[in-house]
Amino acid sequence: MFRILAAVPGEQTVRDATADELPALLTRSGARVWVDLSAPIGEAETAIVRDVFKLHPLAIEDCFERRAHPKIDEYDGYLYLITHGLSAGATADSAEPVELDAFLGANYLVTHHADASRSVAAVIEQVTRTGIPLNQGPAAVLHAILDRQVDGLEAVLDNFEERIETLEDAVFARPRNDHIASLLSMKRNILELRRWTAKQREVLLRLGRREFALITAEDTLLFRDVHDHLVRINDLLEVFRDMLTSIQEAYLSVVSNRTNDIMRFLTLFSTIMMPLTVLTGIYGMNFDHMPELRSAHGYPLVLVGMLLIAGSMLLYFRHRGWLGQPPSVDEKAADEPPAAARRSAERSRRSSARREAVRP
Amino acid sequence: MFRILAAVPGEQTVRDATADELPALLTRSGARVWVDLSAPIGEAETAIVRDVFKLHPLAIEDCFERRAHPKIDEYDGYLYLITHGLSAGATADSAEPVELDAFLGANYLVTHHADASRSVAAVIEQVTRTGIPLNQGPAAVLHAILDRQVDGLEAVLDNFEERIETLEDAVFARPRNDHIASLLSMKRNILELRRWTAKQREVLLRLGRREFALITAEDTLLFRDVHDHLVRINDLLEVFRDMLTSIQEAYLSVVSNRTNDIMRFLTLFSTIMMPLTVLTGIYGMNFDHMPELRSAHGYPLVLVGMLLIAGSMLLYFRHRGWLGQPPSVDEKAADEPPAAARRSAERSRRSSARREAVRP
Amino acid sequence: MFRILAAVPGEQTVRDATADELPALLTRSGARVWVDLSAPIGEAETAIVRDVFKLHPLAIEDCFERRAHPKIDEYDGYLYLITHGLSAGATADSAEPVELDAFLGANYLVTHHADASRSVAAVIEQVTRTGIPLNQGPAAVLHAILDRQVDGLEAVLDNFEERIETLEDAVFARPRNDHIASLLSMKRNILELRRWTAKQREVLLRLGRREFALITAEDTLLFRDVHDHLVRINDLLEVFRDMLTSIQEAYLSVVSNRTNDIMRFLTLFSTIMMPLTVLTGIYGMNFDHMPELRSAHGYPLVLVGMLLIAGSMLLYFRHRGWLGQPPSVDEKAADEPPAAARRSAERSRRSSARREAVRP
Amino acid sequence: MFRILAAVPGEQTVRDATADELPALLTRSGARVWVDLSAPIGEAETAIVRDVFKLHPLAIEDCFERRAHPKIDEYDGYLYLITHGLSAGATADSAEPVELDAFLGANYLVTHHADASRSVAAVIEQVTRTGIPLNQGPAAVLHAILDRQVDGLEAVLDNFEERIETLEDAVFARPRNDHIASLLSMKRNILELRRWTAKQREVLLRLGRREFALITAEDTLLFRDVHDHLVRINDLLEVFRDMLTSIQEAYLSVVSNRTNDIMRFLTLFSTIMMPLTVLTGIYGMNFDHMPELRSAHGYPLVLVGMLLIAGSMLLYFRHRGWLGQPPSVDEKAADEPPAAARRSAERSRRSSARREAVRP
Amino acid sequence: MFRILAAVPGEQTVRDATADELPALLTRSGARVWVDLSAPIGEAETAIVRDVFKLHPLAIEDCFERRAHPKIDEYDGYLYLITHGLSAGATADSAEPVELDAFLGANYLVTHHADASRSVAAVIEQVTRTGIPLNQGPAAVLHAILDRQVDGLEAVLDNFEERIETLEDAVFARPRNDHIASLLSMKRNILELRRWTAKQREVLLRLGRREFALITAEDTLLFRDVHDHLVRINDLLEVFRDMLTSIQEAYLSVVSNRTNDIMRFLTLFSTIMMPLTVLTGIYGMNFDHMPELRSAHGYPLVLVGMLLIAGSMLLYFRHRGWLGQPPSVDEKAADEPPAAARRSAERSRRSSARREAVRP
Repeated sequence: MFRILAAVPGEQTVRDATADELPALLTRSGARVWVDLSAPIGEAETAIVRDVFKLHPLAIEDCFERRAHPKIDEYDGYLYLITHGLSAGATADSAEPVELDAFLGANYLVTHHADASRSVAAVIEQVTRTGIPLNQGPAAVLHAILDRQVDGLEAVLDNFEERIETLEDAVFARPRNDHIASLLSMKRNILELRRWTAKQREVLLRLGRREFALITAEDTLLFRDVHDHLVRINDLLEVFRDMLTSIQEAYLSVVSNRTNDIMRFLTLFSTIMMPLTVLTGIYGMNFDHMPELRSAHGYPLVLVGMLLIAGSMLLYFRHRGWLGQPPSVDEKAADEPPAAARRSAERSRRSSARREAVRP
Repeated sequence: MFRILAAVPGEQTVRDATADELPALLTRSGARVWVDLSAPIGEAETAIVRDVFKLHPLAIEDCFERRAHPKIDEYDGYLYLITHGLSAGATADSAEPVELDAFLGANYLVTHHADASRSVAAVIEQVTRTGIPLNQGPAAVLHAILDRQVDGLEAVLDNFEERIETLEDAVFARPRNDHIASLLSMKRNILELRRWTAKQREVLLRLGRREFALITAEDTLLFRDVHDHLVRINDLLEVFRDMLTSIQEAYLSVVSNRTNDIMRFLTLFSTIMMPLTVLTGIYGMNFDHMPELRSAHGYPLVLVGMLLIAGSMLLYFRHRGWLGQPPSVDEKAADEPPAAARRSAERSRRSSARREAVRP
Repeated sequence: MFRILAAVPGEQTVRDATADELPALLTRSGARVWVDLSAPIGEAETAIVRDVFKLHPLAIEDCFERRAHPKIDEYDGYLYLITHGLSAGATADSAEPVELDAFLGANYLVTHHADASRSVAAVIEQVTRTGIPLNQGPAAVLHAILDRQVDGLEAVLDNFEERIETLEDAVFARPRNDHIASLLSMKRNILELRRWTAKQREVLLRLGRREFALITAEDTLLFRDVHDHLVRINDLLEVFRDMLTSIQEAYLSVVSNRTNDIMRFLTLFSTIMMPLTVLTGIYGMNFDHMPELRSAHGYPLVLVGMLLIAGSMLLYFRHRGWLGQPPSVDEKAADEPPAAARRSAERSRRSSARREAVRP
Repeated sequence: MFRILAAVPGEQTVRDATADELPALLTRSGARVWVDLSAPIGEAETAIVRDVFKLHPLAIEDCFERRAHPKIDEYDGYLYLITHGLSAGATADSAEPVELDAFLGANYLVTHHADASRSVAAVIEQVTRTGIPLNQGPAAVLHAILDRQVDGLEAVLDNFEERIETLEDAVFARPRNDHIASLLSMKRNILELRRWTAKQREVLLRLGRREFALITAEDTLLFRDVHDHLVRINDLLEVFRDMLTSIQEAYLSVVSNRTNDIMRFLTLFSTIMMPLTVLTGIYGMNFDHMPELRSAHGYPLVLVGMLLIAGSMLLYFRHRGWLGQPPSVDEKAADEPPAAARRSAERSRRSSARREAVRP
Repeated sequence: MFRILAAVPGEQTVRDATADELPALLTRSGARVWVDLSAPIGEAETAIVRDVFKLHPLAIEDCFERRAHPKIDEYDGYLYLITHGLSAGATADSAEPVELDAFLGANYLVTHHADASRSVAAVIEQVTRTGIPLNQGPAAVLHAILDRQVDGLEAVLDNFEERIETLEDAVFARPRNDHIASLLSMKRNILELRRWTAKQREVLLRLGRREFALITAEDTLLFRDVHDHLVRINDLLEVFRDMLTSIQEAYLSVVSNRTNDIMRFLTLFSTIMMPLTVLTGIYGMNFDHMPELRSAHGYPLVLVGMLLIAGSMLLYFRHRGWLGQPPSVDEKAADEPPAAARRSAERSRRSSARREAVRP
């Protein structure tokens, strides 16, 4: 499937063109053409790239195959680049890249995407409505698509941040194996994202530093802007990864602390009860000659003695500070409210600040 | 909102100017102009940067938007740079950057800050009072602002150091989950600070190495000084981060050690009490033929036997060294006083040494 | 053992040649020769490389010895390179490299492998059947072999991914020391693989960047393609390694959590049973004057009291939240089904996506 | 306070000079002057550097302030460098740098140190006694000072090594929270030392590679020697840091192992005692019809039965291997003597080897 | 002590020369001289290097001192290099470097070693027997020595590998504190080895890349070969270090798992025994009105009830899966035999493969 959009000088609006018009359009001075190819790729589509644009067979092969990482290659008269965006439903749990191939010539742009691409659809909509940015040249169209790809990425970063904070709270509230599994899954997704955004950043660095004669000085400023966005995204992914690692370590600390609390409770209880058991055992013995047993005050005295033993044990433990922190399953509730409130307040502030910062 | 300060040769003091005077001032030989823009940004402010200074539209757009990281871009005839400072109330728990944009021309400086900026306010106050540093040129004004930003940063570093030391003591005294949460929050703030101070350092490195024709040799020395400060700040942030990681690991060790202590106490107590329980159980059995029960000395002998068992158990444990370290919740109190004192003494010494070292 | 294949212009098919024909073939214009040497290496084989091709004695020595890492050396008129593939039966548990030595001249390729090489065998089969790629030149033959080596690597990566996911599930289900041993063994294999694939990537980087006059511009594109594959493989090995490290840390968390569960169960049970023991002990004492013992309702009242104690203890623990998570050996079963299902679904999706991505 | 030493050709010995003689000395051919400034810095001292040597105001300001890190700056006709040494009483617990500023001209050296400097004092003593190295030029004096600074560093490294080994032994003998605190403190000091020795190494690298016209080829050889020392010191600091990290991890392992031992002991004891308790409980029941109670052999048989139960439990545990490693507080004592001896022997050998290696 | 070997053209064999003959030999065309100096260094030895070879005093000083790290310095007409080997008895526990200094001139080689050097001894033996490699020039002699040094290193690597594998097995069999101590010691030795082999690799890199006019193109090939060996050794040391780190982490996991097992056993046993204790307690109470006590079937029914309680507890635990993994001290024995066998098989295979790979 293909769609051809042409901005011809003298014509009011951008219009759709047929494959047959292409050769004429390409040689016409001032005309700009954007060909968008999407699955299924048939003979017609192949003919356009091979015969009309005369692109290098290896590049065409690369383009119609699924490749794993972003790159940019310079060919004679055009650039071939692979970039990635995220699909519409991408979340912290599922952040698969959607590949976009682009051939950028002096007066044309050829894009290809096997899957539906939100970015391309949005730019086609804009071009057909306003003519912008196709009438500013093919590099401007490419920039518009890449800019939207990056916006899609940022939405997923927000989801990551939210998920990480929920996880952090959950671990402090009550650590479960499930949290570790969740953490591993997010870590892996962040690792994957970093892998290709790092390469995409390099592609945009090259687009943004006047390396290619095809890109005008004005256009490099546009691409440098996208590059700056990607740098910030990479930095944030790095921060997220560090935070996940810290949370995984915190998990162990929280579990160890809880085990410590439970052990202390058991120890406390056992050391109070065991002497009482021994005492009752003593007066349960069947010796003939046990004077206490005959005394009328023996029984109440022993009961009082038991209370004294238990009480002095408790006092001893209190002195040691053991009673200060009863074992609590919901540690969160035991948290000083100010601390918890402060943390949550800081979070919302930081989160909103980040949002402002990243989205100009 | 905007304020225009002009240092005109022949005039005694720096004076405020209006927007209408600007074009004349900029062409007047020897005159130096500083325009400070702050929110709200209206048509008047936009007109100044667009029509009077004729700054690049992309740079203006960048300037009035909130960007995430410091950078420096060279344009034709002026430099555009973004730097960050910290707000007045910044602490180790909340260290949000305050952005400052600056356009530095041969005879003018345009600054913009969306939020109130302590650094800018202080320099304005100095300029209106003494004329310095505006009469030394716009680069000197820029340096004065950047220098004050860095001073603000150092105050927060002190807060970090204090908080980290308090936390370290608290963890050794009695580890709580709250400490881990606090540690994670500080780690995140340090991560954020490092992210942008590292980029700011690069900006100042470029300002300090005669890369730009606009900056005179004398001015590069000034900026190199700020750069040296930022290098030290970055180094300290690195040290703080390493210390927090070590404290997090220490937390786990301390908790494990406490669990070990409690387990030892429980084991000690149980192994003393359980044989006594069995002994009382034996003489509580109802067999008809138990000669001991009939003996007049049976009961006292059994009591003596119980004391002997408990005593020999204690001796055995003492021999093993189990009694040496009773479980104590306040480990700090159990610390050898000299060690604790030495640590605290070293700290105060180091802290004051650092303060001297960082603040020339 | 050796085999000589020659593509001579004018002849329909590639044909086998004898050692005696070699000198003539090498000087014949347009002829391309591929000599494949394999164990055992005797006088005949040595004579070919020494006397016919006049290769450097040090390179020949290197070639017939087993070397540990891939490299490329330029000699006068030919390149000598060592690359590695994996044997047919390689798995995540056993991924030994199979070495391949190659001498690439303008019109010849000499390969040597001590062990059977799947890649070489497959290319020989293709060449004898179709003439391709020998009739495209010796560099094309080399590319075909290297490309097949990389394909073999990718099959093992799939095995690694599968094993890692099985291991992750097993650790969450029930951590065993065996898993740690398995993890260590896989980590070591990944380490080894990374060691030589990183070096092999460098070899292909050099082949792909027009560094050598022997490699035409068109051929560099081919080698760059293999290089891109190796980059992705290296990235994946890095991801696998990170995943294994995360799983090892997760193991400790899961075990700690299980210990915590068991401790909680023991504490719960002990604290319910111990007061009951003390109570029965009290009424088992033999004091003469214990009024309760004489009452007709004493016994049933004590039984009711014991039930009340146990019940209120349980209520207390429930209030604390201790009963919420009974100790379960099969944590997996206790997992919320949606989480487990989500994880497994994500996995299969990711896995298939990766497969597509890596294999163009 | 200042002291001026002058080596004048034709004069036998180096002599002290006054501030008034300085201008004449500096212009006299072949004369070499060393001015050492130390606190307090008054008008006289400032006048010397400002008016006589005409040093750059910024450099003078830097010099009299306390700066945090070593650096070297080239000015017109002289070099300005900041280096650090350690104070006389520096140990592993307290290793504060002592700053030294130096201005090196063609025929003069100006040094400044706010605190007492062992290195400077030693070189002054040598110069006044023998004339060496001042009569070899100011660079030779600088070298002599820097060389002594490095010697001071090495003495502290020895202290670190000793302390680390003591700590390692202590952790294996009996882990205490105190050890972790000690470890954190040493880690922090090593971090600090590495921070400035790394920068000092760069300063000496630049002095040692003929970068500055002021330094003759012969002098660069001297500075390269100091550089080599600093490289080795940096390497050792790196090794120390790795060792401390390993010891911190070992701490956790040792504590976990001890907890394991104690738990095993408790489990062992409990599982032997609890069945005996149940048995005595059974025969303590008050049923009318319990035939065993009437038997004359009941009591001895039950006692025998209890012994048998305890014995078979012990045999079972022995079979399982539980008895092999009794819980011991002094793990060190339980260590195989040869292992401990071997370790200690190796240590003393290594230590002495290192000493030889580092101090030529 | 010194020994002088001379290969003179026209003479059949290499012969020993005296110090007096040296000047003549050095000027004789085609003659090659090797002077080996060893402790004790007296006036005669010093005279040779100072007066005959006229080596730089600083280099001579360096040579006769003990230095810590390998390096290479170019002087006018000769190279001075320091390299390290290992002594004959070096093992994984004790791998002290033996230093070798060498001065390489156009027609001479001067070597110096304070300790006995196996490599030098072996080459002297070969030279006196066959003349080779001295008659090929001094660089060939140097290569022969360096090559033997590397061979000695590889023998120690084998010892490391063996020790690491033994340790890994021991940790899985039964973790002891001793293992951690052993691990720390090996880690430290690997750290030390890496430190100087990394520097030695750089020395050989420089010798192997035609940087020095003294080294012919043919000789660089020889040194490049040694360099390749050192690269592989460095890689292996890195792998060993990673393995030791992984084993240290595995240790903690294994200990935690064992603690978990023991806890489970204790919990199991306690929860079975405690209800029985309570039951016997109930029927041991002395209430007058306890109808069950009067019944003839009371006693047997209670015994049956106790069995039922114990049995149902066991069934419950079995249902939960607690009985599946009894606490075993020898975890190794509990390992599935195939896994253990597989591991060991893989190991021997890998080990032999490595040996082949490293030793060409």
